[in-house]
Amino acid sequence: MGLLAGISSPADLRRLKPQQLPALAAEIRDFLVHNVSRTGGHLGPNLGVVELTLALHRVFESPKDTFVFDTGHQSYVHKLLTGRQDFSALRKQGGLSGYPSRTESEHDVVENSHASTALSWADGIARANQVRGFDDRHVIAVIGDGALTGGMAWEALNNIAESEDRRVIIVVNDNGRSYSPTIGGLAHHLDTLRTTRGYEQFLGWGKRTLSRSGAPGRFAFQALHGLKKGLKDVVMPQGMFEDLGIKYIGPVDGHDEAAMERALQRARDFGAPVIVHAITEKGRGYTPAEQDVADRFHAVGRIHPETGLPVAPSRFGWTSVFADEIVRIGRRRPDVVAITAAMLHPVGLAPFAAEFPERTFDVGIAEQHAATSAAGMAFAGLHPVVAVYATFLNRAFDQVLMDVALHKAGVTFVLDRAGLTGDDGASHNGMWDMAMLRIVPGLRLAAPRDEPTLRAALRTAVDVDDAPTVVRYPKGALVDDIPAVTELDGVDVIARHEGPDGARRVLVVGIGSMAGTALATGEALAAHGLAVTVASPTWVLPVPAALVKLAGEADLVVTLEDGVVDGGIGSMLAQRSAEQGITTPQVHRGIPLQFLDHATRDQIAAATRLTAADATRDALAALTPR
Amino acid sequence: MGLLAGISSPADLRRLKPQQLPALAAEIRDFLVHNVSRTGGHLGPNLGVVELTLALHRVFESPKDTFVFDTGHQSYVHKLLTGRQDFSALRKQGGLSGYPSRTESEHDVVENSHASTALSWADGIARANQVRGFDDRHVIAVIGDGALTGGMAWEALNNIAESEDRRVIIVVNDNGRSYSPTIGGLAHHLDTLRTTRGYEQFLGWGKRTLSRSGAPGRFAFQALHGLKKGLKDVVMPQGMFEDLGIKYIGPVDGHDEAAMERALQRARDFGAPVIVHAITEKGRGYTPAEQDVADRFHAVGRIHPETGLPVAPSRFGWTSVFADEIVRIGRRRPDVVAITAAMLHPVGLAPFAAEFPERTFDVGIAEQHAATSAAGMAFAGLHPVVAVYATFLNRAFDQVLMDVALHKAGVTFVLDRAGLTGDDGASHNGMWDMAMLRIVPGLRLAAPRDEPTLRAALRTAVDVDDAPTVVRYPKGALVDDIPAVTELDGVDVIARHEGPDGARRVLVVGIGSMAGTALATGEALAAHGLAVTVASPTWVLPVPAALVKLAGEADLVVTLEDGVVDGGIGSMLAQRSAEQGITTPQVHRGIPLQFLDHATRDQIAAATRLTAADATRDALAALTPR
Repeated sequence: MGLLAGISSPADLRRLKPQQLPALAAEIRDFLVHNVSRTGGHLGPNLGVVELTLALHRVFESPKDTFVFDTGHQSYVHKLLTGRQDFSALRKQGGLSGYPSRTESEHDVVENSHASTALSWADGIARANQVRGFDDRHVIAVIGDGALTGGMAWEALNNIAESEDRRVIIVVNDNGRSYSPTIGGLAHHLDTLRTTRGYEQFLGWGKRTLSRSGAPGRFAFQALHGLKKGLKDVVMPQGMFEDLGIKYIGPVDGHDEAAMERALQRARDFGAPVIVHAITEKGRGYTPAEQDVADRFHAVGRIHPETGLPVAPSRFGWTSVFADEIVRIGRRRPDVVAITAAMLHPVGLAPFAAEFPERTFDVGIAEQHAATSAAGMAFAGLHPVVAVYATFLNRAFDQVLMDVALHKAGVTFVLDRAGLTGDDGASHNGMWDMAMLRIVPGLRLAAPRDEPTLRAALRTAVDVDDAPTVVRYPKGALVDDIPAVTELDGVDVIARHEGPDGARRVLVVGIGSMAGTALATGEALAAHGLAVTVASPTWVLPVPAALVKLAGEADLVVTLEDGVVDGGIGSMLAQRSAEQGITTPQVHRGIPLQFLDHATRDQIAAATRLTAADATRDALAALTPR
Repeated sequence: MGLLAGISSPADLRRLKPQQLPALAAEIRDFLVHNVSRTGGHLGPNLGVVELTLALHRVFESPKDTFVFDTGHQSYVHKLLTGRQDFSALRKQGGLSGYPSRTESEHDVVENSHASTALSWADGIARANQVRGFDDRHVIAVIGDGALTGGMAWEALNNIAESEDRRVIIVVNDNGRSYSPTIGGLAHHLDTLRTTRGYEQFLGWGKRTLSRSGAPGRFAFQALHGLKKGLKDVVMPQGMFEDLGIKYIGPVDGHDEAAMERALQRARDFGAPVIVHAITEKGRGYTPAEQDVADRFHAVGRIHPETGLPVAPSRFGWTSVFADEIVRIGRRRPDVVAITAAMLHPVGLAPFAAEFPERTFDVGIAEQHAATSAAGMAFAGLHPVVAVYATFLNRAFDQVLMDVALHKAGVTFVLDRAGLTGDDGASHNGMWDMAMLRIVPGLRLAAPRDEPTLRAALRTAVDVDDAPTVVRYPKGALVDDIPAVTELDGVDVIARHEGPDGARRVLVVGIGSMAGTALATGEALAAHGLAVTVASPTWVLPVPAALVKLAGEADLVVTLEDGVVDGGIGSMLAQRSAEQGITTPQVHRGIPLQFLDHATRDQIAAATRLTAADATRDALAALTPR
């Protein structure tokens, strides 16, 4: 670790000789495989940007120049070069975040891990630099080809293209895939650009010729550019970026550090928006990742570094149940189709796609389009199932509201990783979905608590043809089944403690994955001599009438949910109860309205008082006269 | 009105001879000017699509073929041709909607008036047609050049381009502007295409030549297309649409009905996604509109048909106060910049732009980019003010949450037309903003009640530099000032009725524009012998501690808000109260969670029980023991 250990800031990197860089790159790859295999994390994306990141930090001067990493999961190399080389607690409480983090470093700017935002950030920063007169500052956005399929990227490109002097450099990190191979017309176009031979060599020749003639910087670029335009049918196809008005440099071999530096220098000296098209390979230099087709090394848990095999094979999880049940539904219902936003494997749609390829649609990283095209499909007689991570549905709130719900379209949204996700940090927690969806008229939402209720909820959801339905479930392994002891008008009661005669009555409501915590809370309260009913309604939106009735019969209601408590299901139950004149006091436990630092889910639950002990304490306090 | 009266369905139109169409077009224009000048409505956009719509209904067969109108405000001609010629109650209760409406006609599909959705709808419908084997059905999306700047349109284009056999025809209705002139790289590119001479003539020649040679349909197109490709540097620039993989036909004079028919026939017969680029003029054929530069005829109130002047000049409104105050702020604060999503004039930013052009950014119809680029600007030292209609902020929920709030960016969102908007129909009501924004951590929201509180709220908002701030106000004319009689820790009390000794105490809370209703409610309750405090907090998120305290001192709380009642400010106050052990019963009045048909705002308020009489009745009922 000789070279890497000597780098505590980008200035140290810039002092290295070019011939030292291949050794440094190799060190960094060893470091990444060695460390990420122990902690888990985003391995493939970071192995793919080693040379690219070295070149960025040698050509530009962060933090005067601003780096924006789209999605941020490819920022590990950047961290290593900016004074952060202790990866022992990566993504653990107190350790480094898996994404850029402003509290970690002045070199980090954007923490949001939702895709396709980098160009908008860059445009805004560059406009501000202009307004404030900082003409020597550059803004560099690093964005994958997959993220370019997101609508925000287009909105930003359209704005960036408008400028003739904003110093925005867009590095397209083109590895042909995000989670799944990149889809659509853009992918086709990038492929056309990518397979064009001879461009870099031609530019190299042009550069040498021009520099002999003494033409500097921007003039040289323009001369080259003019040449290129004139020879475009010989050398390369004219591209859509140039049609928009953004200069294009590429394709460049993203693993040729020297070539990347040359391209970035040209981009830097041009003084106007430029796209640098870098061709990279995800997982580069790590054989198990290079040879994997399902992209399992995009993000890994703990693995054996030599083989890439998991240390602890993951347990049968919620995603697998969905994957199985949706195939069963598909066999019986030829009108059911599946939509994914570039995450076919992570959301569990691969088996459905294998059996029904013509009924499976990967729309790219495009949640808005996923929702609205689903409304179109429903209009034309299908029942679409849109499977996304819960946090990403935020992107399509307006479309769920105005295209799906307003048009009474029978579309089912399946939200994986709802609730706390933990180590992926603030923007991955699926904690906004219930409070957001509760204000969509007509929408029905299920939060199943175990495998049988998940399967049942899915079957029910696809039978609704006049409203959006949502089924949400958490990340990770399934819990053991939690059977109902009785059922009241559709609301499962999962435990009942009679209590002594005259005991005060508590209704504990466990939403979805909080059913287990609700059971434990019920037992603790029963031990305090209370009569407890523990309810676990699978369908929570609209709030079941039976649940309101149960609330009216209790002396205290305690709700537990793994979503933001402000405006959540508890607050909804309180509102419906109040409308019926039910004045039973209610205690609502859920995720507090704040952005959560990365930690394990148990650590976050403890810190946010989402445990049975906390709920019990709050319930007892509420029953004590003040 | 001879020809138009004879058309009760598209079949009637198709029976007309081509030489009759100019007269029909003239009749339709007369009809539109005559009728819309009496009712108000979208005049300019519909005058611009007369020939285009005639051609659509002659070439395609609705409803077998599906028409999707982006934003929908250009569907008046379509209505006239599909059996709806009674425009006397346009946009009035019981009359025709100003947008497509499924309850009106089987020819209407998409009712959502938010821009840039049409291509996603079309893609979804076309995919469903494929899955279901309806190979003879076409889907035609009509979308403005302005709407193409929205990210959703890009997501859809990328998907549509992927297909080689989906029968999607995209008609780009290119008038160079949406509300404001279209901005960005796309506009530049369209302009390049638009100004290319000779293409249509060349195609016409090719068509004649090929039809003499007997080459039919798709083959003919491909032959032509091949020719065009070969001659592209002579005849036209290769365009970005073709780079993406979507065939391009154009530019076509959108007011030459015969040329439009020819282009659409070619598109129809091609059997794969095609863009038809139609050049149109907004307001075509109506001199006052053609000569207007500020696009005031996009949507009009009642006007004199000859002059285009308003019948009743609009009263000084909320928008004007914002327009004035933001200029004052701009003079004092060089770091304050303004962002609009293609609506510079409607949101009142024109005076700011005139004085500070270099600090005003029109980003196109791109609310997502507006929010995230604002976060970038805030990072780089500016304070951006993003001014949009309240309903359109739904588009940027994820960006407000993950880019602005998570990064503690000092960005101010100004929401015009919050609350009920009435005649524009379901998707224009600004009723979701408060319930949606309440779940954004750290966000502060003001709902001023009159001019002084609006000015004060704006001044306060731009002083916050570590969190998003929001100022929301309704459509239309200002109310008279409602001064505070006292103030409690930042919460204005606007009326106090002492009541007799021992009277029960009611706290009435009027949010923003509901302050007047709250005053009336307070008086009515006082007349019933109650002691009433009427509070009108300007800043409602987070819920002021003083308001919670007032709730704790009352026997009943009544909240009034012009947003959805589910999850609204009332529900928030109840939740905060309950957390402090305050059990005062609360009655929350707001907009019920449903999509509202078009009607006047007063009609909707009455129908949804948002009046003082309703609030008074509910309050008295809540005080009556059951």
